Amino acid sequence: MRLVKSITETKKIIKLEKNKGKIIGFVPTMGYLHKGHLSLVHIARRKSEFLVVSIFVNPTQFSPDEDLKKYPRDMKRDLKSLKQEGTDLVFYPSVKQIYPSDYKTYVQIKDLSRLLCGVSRPHHFRGVTTVVLKLFNIIKPDIAVFGQKDYQQAVIIKRMVKDLCLNIKILLGKIIREKDGLAMSSRNIYLSTQQRENATVLYQSLKWVKWSFNDGLTNPKKAIKKIRVMIKQNSGKVDYIVAVNKNTLEPVKRLKKGTLIALAAYFGKTRLIDNTIL
Amino acid sequence: MRLVKSITETKKIIKLEKNKGKIIGFVPTMGYLHKGHLSLVHIARRKSEFLVVSIFVNPTQFSPDEDLKKYPRDMKRDLKSLKQEGTDLVFYPSVKQIYPSDYKTYVQIKDLSRLLCGVSRPHHFRGVTTVVLKLFNIIKPDIAVFGQKDYQQAVIIKRMVKDLCLNIKILLGKIIREKDGLAMSSRNIYLSTQQRENATVLYQSLKWVKWSFNDGLTNPKKAIKKIRVMIKQNSGKVDYIVAVNKNTLEPVKRLKKGTLIALAAYFGKTRLIDNTIL
Repeated sequence: MRLVKSITETKKIIKLEKNKGKIIGFVPTMGYLHKGHLSLVHIARRKSEFLVVSIFVNPTQFSPDEDLKKYPRDMKRDLKSLKQEGTDLVFYPSVKQIYPSDYKTYVQIKDLSRLLCGVSRPHHFRGVTTVVLKLFNIIKPDIAVFGQKDYQQAVIIKRMVKDLCLNIKILLGKIIREKDGLAMSSRNIYLSTQQRENATVLYQSLKWVKWSFNDGLTNPKKAIKKIRVMIKQNSGKVDYIVAVNKNTLEPVKRLKKGTLIALAAYFGKTRLIDNTIL
Repeated sequence: MRLVKSITETKKIIKLEKNKGKIIGFVPTMGYLHKGHLSLVHIARRKSEFLVVSIFVNPTQFSPDEDLKKYPRDMKRDLKSLKQEGTDLVFYPSVKQIYPSDYKTYVQIKDLSRLLCGVSRPHHFRGVTTVVLKLFNIIKPDIAVFGQKDYQQAVIIKRMVKDLCLNIKILLGKIIREKDGLAMSSRNIYLSTQQRENATVLYQSLKWVKWSFNDGLTNPKKAIKKIRVMIKQNSGKVDYIVAVNKNTLEPVKRLKKGTLIALAAYFGKTRLIDNTIL
């Protein structure tokens, strides 16, 4: 496994591998890898012949009041896990390399970036699409794997790839959960024992919707209201709960097969997200 | 010379040529080609082994009150000229292909897009960078040639290429002028005989600055004031006249070697631009 910081060096290595006709697989991460990330790396490994994972805590997707500085890092553990998964190259550029002082270019996806997480995090997805496009241009992957946990992100990246005529197949890895159902997230370590326990309500409420939908519930307002109550009863502060079309992210009038139920809530200062597709 | 409308087909052809190891040259145009365009095609021809020219009147770089609909077109004459220049492939997609109804992705370059032409045309450069990035992703050129007449555009494209880590060398072709000095432009045909005559003041005023600078003029305000008077005396309505750093496009305090003098002015309803580097 090679560890490369430089953009030029990474491009050089990729070019050599591409010239050998190898399929390049890619998983972009912000490090502090958990089983969720590793499941994406695993998918990419199976689908590619040269596997690149990037570790870059991307400042442009955090707002000034967010947790950029204290975002958890553990490079040593990350590298060990990535080696075990058969990663060929770990790209871990510095902030200065990705955003030199005269940096000015941003990619924006209309509409999709303003909904759901985009309401409370208005510049978040602009940061995500910008850095992912840069990483795509450096790594030139044939396939890239994103997690379903960040479902809106995946929709937005797919839109960007199609709109910009990039030749990259975007694959989605399913949500990996703790034993009690909490979706794995690098931010889970911020939770106190009590908050950690309360946060399981997110998955419980999504399971409740699935069951109720199977039992005949089709009214999205009813479903959302009930989830809101469940989260509040567990000391969570709801950011949003939506029932939307899984491609356009626009609200649906009736729940149906394929409807995306997505939510975000705070437990203490920690914002968690989760979702399910009916 | 091949004529291709389809994005997929174009990508396929380019891939074959790249696999042969050929250097791909590219000149994006909006058609209605004049000697200015053809000089860029000529440069690209000399520097590349497979030459692509695109013809696409890009709607996203026009504002609603601009001349999109009546923008001049002459495909037959364009193709004849491009064949003479040794073009290998002419890519002329439809608007629907480039911007399908669910299109949502835009590229923006901060600061640089808001200055000079960006003041009176606030969305213009967003449209330019978006379409050029798409064309770059389709054609994957090694070199691309832009005109110095659209100097700000060239600075912005260069910035985008660097910021997004694209492997494309951007070359600049010098301004090609009519015998009386008017910079060639597809929009010159809009001018009445009188306006056409008046418009020569643009080049005359730029020549005046060059001479005066060589004679010791260093005060940008003085230079700008004088040019303003010259244009007004010739019935032109000034949009902007600036003396700026040729890389940052920020105003300079003193004229020096390398300072960009750029201007835009209306003659009747026709907006013309021109520039010179001291």
